[in-house]
Amino acid sequence: MAFLGIDLGGTYARAAVVDEHGRILAASKMALTDRTPLGVVAAIELAATDAMTGIRGINRTGVGVAGMLDGETGHVVNAPNLGWRDVPFGAMLAERLGHSVRVVNDLSAAAWGELKGGAGRGASEVFVMFVGSGVGSSIITHGQLVRGATNSAGEFGHVKVVPGGRRCGCGQHGCLEAYAGGHNLIAQMVEALATGRHTVLRTMHQDGGRELTPVLLEEAAQQGDELAKEIFDRASAYLGLAVANMISVLNPERLIIGGGVLSRCSGMRQAIADGVQRYSTEVSKHALHISEAALGDDAGIIGAALLAAEA
Amino acid sequence: MAFLGIDLGGTYARAAVVDEHGRILAASKMALTDRTPLGVVAAIELAATDAMTGIRGINRTGVGVAGMLDGETGHVVNAPNLGWRDVPFGAMLAERLGHSVRVVNDLSAAAWGELKGGAGRGASEVFVMFVGSGVGSSIITHGQLVRGATNSAGEFGHVKVVPGGRRCGCGQHGCLEAYAGGHNLIAQMVEALATGRHTVLRTMHQDGGRELTPVLLEEAAQQGDELAKEIFDRASAYLGLAVANMISVLNPERLIIGGGVLSRCSGMRQAIADGVQRYSTEVSKHALHISEAALGDDAGIIGAALLAAEA
Repeated sequence: MAFLGIDLGGTYARAAVVDEHGRILAASKMALTDRTPLGVVAAIELAATDAMTGIRGINRTGVGVAGMLDGETGHVVNAPNLGWRDVPFGAMLAERLGHSVRVVNDLSAAAWGELKGGAGRGASEVFVMFVGSGVGSSIITHGQLVRGATNSAGEFGHVKVVPGGRRCGCGQHGCLEAYAGGHNLIAQMVEALATGRHTVLRTMHQDGGRELTPVLLEEAAQQGDELAKEIFDRASAYLGLAVANMISVLNPERLIIGGGVLSRCSGMRQAIADGVQRYSTEVSKHALHISEAALGDDAGIIGAALLAAEA
Repeated sequence: MAFLGIDLGGTYARAAVVDEHGRILAASKMALTDRTPLGVVAAIELAATDAMTGIRGINRTGVGVAGMLDGETGHVVNAPNLGWRDVPFGAMLAERLGHSVRVVNDLSAAAWGELKGGAGRGASEVFVMFVGSGVGSSIITHGQLVRGATNSAGEFGHVKVVPGGRRCGCGQHGCLEAYAGGHNLIAQMVEALATGRHTVLRTMHQDGGRELTPVLLEEAAQQGDELAKEIFDRASAYLGLAVANMISVLNPERLIIGGGVLSRCSGMRQAIADGVQRYSTEVSKHALHISEAALGDDAGIIGAALLAAEA
């Protein structure tokens, strides 16, 4: 048995044929030149057709989308990367592909991929946390993904760590993501540079021509740069505390951490491990194994295909 | 079908025969004069025998215990109220009653009772939060109680709200319970009185002869007493924020709040509702219905019986 997985990013649509064990049999990607729903559906169809070349009998597709979804109907309520609001995406794509389509949150898909085919294999109580451009999570209990009442469970990036604090892209204030998400780490660097304060970031960026990234921030913080430390250590501390509290409450057997920022910033991964060690309840931390995500960028596409297989 | 539920407190053992719909058919309670495991088992047997008078065919018992348990073996790892450590309680009680016994955490039992027979009826994604002498919670996802990897899920009282803050009975620092649990609300009043600061609590307590309780604290805070407000408002604010974050992450359809302190302190209940309104994600709060616990002190005994029925 094989299934089609789609990972819909802001720049590319990636398609892969995935077997029931989570192995990628064939893959293809297509740049999104037209981000309208019709343009995206057309790009996905091209990528899918390419990936399915010579493979027959595929009749289920799962697609991971960054945004708020209605998992029942396949409606995309809000996808800021694509500028979509209330798009009947699942139905549009199902019509084009000629078979059933399941629309899932990209992080839920990645978590499911890690659970079934990656770092979570064999576990049934798992907390998966990703820090990339944003911060997100998925919770698995009783071996099942927790979707919540309206498919928005796992919004870990929007727990409040500073009541009334820094404004977040979601419109609220003081969210974890507003301090620790990749976009916001960069935004905080830009804001700090604009104040004129002394920092090696200025030299690295303006003279050295290096791009402002979370990796550069970590490097500067590790060199002892005060401004970089303020931003980086604060983000790391909030992440560590917030994860530790989730571990206390959920008592998972496994914590999986990944995403573009965490996979590159070892100091931030360490801060999460330290936070759990310091703040989680004794019983919950003794039961816990911390793993790094194993599937990298493929987690989402594998998870989307396997979620379609479950449906 | 009927089952036996036991609620093992620090002062009494209560027993009730409960039908499959969660209705109490008969009940009895016995004071715990001897808190050794053997003494408690004997008291439970007396209460159980009394409750089961004239009722035949009961062959499953569930017992709720405040403490850390191993749900698989029925071992009580640690029950501070009873001064127990590592007691093979389930096996002892099963031998005495002559049938199978399921040992569960008292708050998990109360949550299950509310879910199946009280304020959670008909819901499958629920967060239940109790503030009594301590603070605890239970999480229900996919209609099932989340137990976690080692049966300690739901330790909401021990999420950290102030890193390095007030010492908690669990041995760690800065736990929610250390600020908002009933025992700690009283302890904070006692500590504040000892500093000699002006407060109406002194008059109410020393001259008026009123006991220091969370209700007295709320009353003084509502009268505008600065010291009472500090303690009460801080506890309420931490509760509101911590609950709001759980709602964002779990996206439950229902939040059930109860327990001896919350059932008596309407200002604290209001603070929780306000916290959710202010801090939970938009989507999660729109999906949420907040209910007060409906079964009062019977929730635990009903839940324990119904959990035994499930086993």
